[in-house]
Amino acid sequence: MANPSLLILAGDGIGPEVMAEVKKIISWYGDKRGLAFDVSEDLVGGAAYDVHGVPLADATMAKAQEVDAVLLGAVGGPKYDVLDFSVKPERGLLRLRKEMDLYANLRPAQCFDALADFSSLKKDVVAGLDIMIVRELTSGVYFGTPRGITTQPDGSRVGINTQVYTTEEIRRVARSAFELARRRNNKVCSMEKANVMESGILWREEVQWVHDNEYPDVELSHMYADNGAMQLVRRPKQFDVIVTDNLFGDVLSDCAAMLTGSLGMLPSASLGAPMANGRPKAMYEPVHGSAPDIAGQGKANPIACILSFAMALRYSFDQGDEATRLEKAIETVLADGVRTADLMGPEGGQPVSTTEMGDKILAAL
Amino acid sequence: MANPSLLILAGDGIGPEVMAEVKKIISWYGDKRGLAFDVSEDLVGGAAYDVHGVPLADATMAKAQEVDAVLLGAVGGPKYDVLDFSVKPERGLLRLRKEMDLYANLRPAQCFDALADFSSLKKDVVAGLDIMIVRELTSGVYFGTPRGITTQPDGSRVGINTQVYTTEEIRRVARSAFELARRRNNKVCSMEKANVMESGILWREEVQWVHDNEYPDVELSHMYADNGAMQLVRRPKQFDVIVTDNLFGDVLSDCAAMLTGSLGMLPSASLGAPMANGRPKAMYEPVHGSAPDIAGQGKANPIACILSFAMALRYSFDQGDEATRLEKAIETVLADGVRTADLMGPEGGQPVSTTEMGDKILAAL
Ligand SMILES: CC(C)[C@H](C(=O)O)[C@@H](O)C(=O)O
Ligand SMILES: CC(C)[C@H](C(=O)O)[C@@H](O)C(=O)O
Repeated sequence: MANPSLLILAGDGIGPEVMAEVKKIISWYGDKRGLAFDVSEDLVGGAAYDVHGVPLADATMAKAQEVDAVLLGAVGGPKYDVLDFSVKPERGLLRLRKEMDLYANLRPAQCFDALADFSSLKKDVVAGLDIMIVRELTSGVYFGTPRGITTQPDGSRVGINTQVYTTEEIRRVARSAFELARRRNNKVCSMEKANVMESGILWREEVQWVHDNEYPDVELSHMYADNGAMQLVRRPKQFDVIVTDNLFGDVLSDCAAMLTGSLGMLPSASLGAPMANGRPKAMYEPVHGSAPDIAGQGKANPIACILSFAMALRYSFDQGDEATRLEKAIETVLADGVRTADLMGPEGGQPVSTTEMGDKILAAL
Repeated sequence: MANPSLLILAGDGIGPEVMAEVKKIISWYGDKRGLAFDVSEDLVGGAAYDVHGVPLADATMAKAQEVDAVLLGAVGGPKYDVLDFSVKPERGLLRLRKEMDLYANLRPAQCFDALADFSSLKKDVVAGLDIMIVRELTSGVYFGTPRGITTQPDGSRVGINTQVYTTEEIRRVARSAFELARRRNNKVCSMEKANVMESGILWREEVQWVHDNEYPDVELSHMYADNGAMQLVRRPKQFDVIVTDNLFGDVLSDCAAMLTGSLGMLPSASLGAPMANGRPKAMYEPVHGSAPDIAGQGKANPIACILSFAMALRYSFDQGDEATRLEKAIETVLADGVRTADLMGPEGGQPVSTTEMGDKILAAL
């Protein structure tokens, strides 16, 4: 049987640096665990724009559709801020999400024991935190039409975006959330603004429908998104799985990520429908951005990107045990006090480089 | 000259209880400081629905348009959850905001020294925190059309809401933010998702325009709203004034409110254009909701509502010194250790009732 295939899109800023460490880990799995992957690489974001004049070439899009999983680094940088909206680095990422139809974005917000002091929240509020945010990723205001800016005869302008959700778009992502909850603590909290938005009413009703008809065993609650932001700050451990739309998910998952104090540590998976081989369409990427301020300096923390590969092992390749092995190796390294610059506390110490962190994790494997 | 006029809409849940304490304070200002108000009262929210079948009667709306300021308690409660969207308690509130054209919603997020331990964040992260969030309140996805839920021939449904912003809507709220910044620390941070939404691009450009043409002396920065949520959690004291749209403002201001640990303490002002007498159209309300779980038990904290009246003194009646007097009285009471139930720490103690808190503040005045 052919090896499973991976497409690496390292992107911009620290993307290539952190991805270099992931490549070492991938090789290790081939050499030591008999888990060989066919790896190809291509460009996305500003890096693609520099070569092709677009943030994602059609040929790259076609490749992404064919592989078993895409690993993405990060996109964007100040150099590209002046570009037109339609060719900004982000559009490459959004095109991948949309055309691969990756509707379920899984964003774990986990507080690592060794790093609990790092959070701006009190230790008892976040220690042991383990939330899974499931964000709808292919619809809502990100992709709805009509959209754009129009100029009126008097010179003033109007900016429009449209939030659209359909029954099926809501149901399928709700199912992802309920499935995950069954393998966790069996609780889903759905967030919207049903008190203000009709699309939020539909969201609430359809999530409830999926619950009542397909997952009555899972505990379901609903919360307005503004209250959700409050509750995440106040008592985050009340949550198990949170399911929400594209825009609220963007804001709330970043809020939740920051609670953990471990932004450089957080991976994500974006999953779509099963392909012919049974594997879901999938893309894995760290939650952090391209961090142009530290790019090229060997300072970046590769752990979020490596943990994204662990999610690939779990969700694309059914290798939950190997994913756990990798996660444990990272915990060991952290427990040993190995820290990249972003993980240095006020007590100081000597940070390791991106490469050194990768090597330590390899050694722990 | 006629006394300035106030319309009190106490609303639902704890609204009437906390408003009762505000009425004592209003009387005190008439008796002791020569600041008499003509006070009338009416219904809003569920309370209005029970009597009129709508959450805001036309006659009440007309009165609100005529007075110098509206003081609102809170709306909503489980009893009204089953109502149709169009007559839910919230619609009363939204109608007031829209028809009075209260476009600038000022939400201070302040951490009270006596309560800094209360936050789920570390004390050094929030002690002394003093942010002013200026939320656009009359446009965006809250009011944009088309909106609604439609059923397709196959029985599936589509939920739609529309985010619309015009040049003028953005400029006027930006001006409010810059004006406030000049009287504070001269810094404005504007938040949107210009990397994803064209309405966000327009927002960013128009805020920049107002800055460059009218307020070049104020420091302006722009931030994506997801990063804004992160930065609020990570290092909230980096902000002075934040200006953002209706929906992001809803979520981000609640997030900021919760940082302070003093939700029962936070007031808000919603301001519109100047009336014939020079005063802005204005409504003042606590940030907290109707708290049905503790309604009618004398447990509610009246401070947020009283501080909202202090904002009325400052922004509607040009009585900044009297507003400060009231704020100082509240600080004194807190420093004396007087606490309603929501402000009790783990060390325990005996909470005072809503009425007792009001009386203590009166005494401190
Ligand atoms: C880069 C940007 C387009 C993206 C988004 O808004 O979805 C990012 O913030 C994210 O959350 O992955
Ligand atoms: C009650 C609700 C309609 C309202 C809003 O969403 O604006 C509330 O959350 C607020 O922030 O004042």
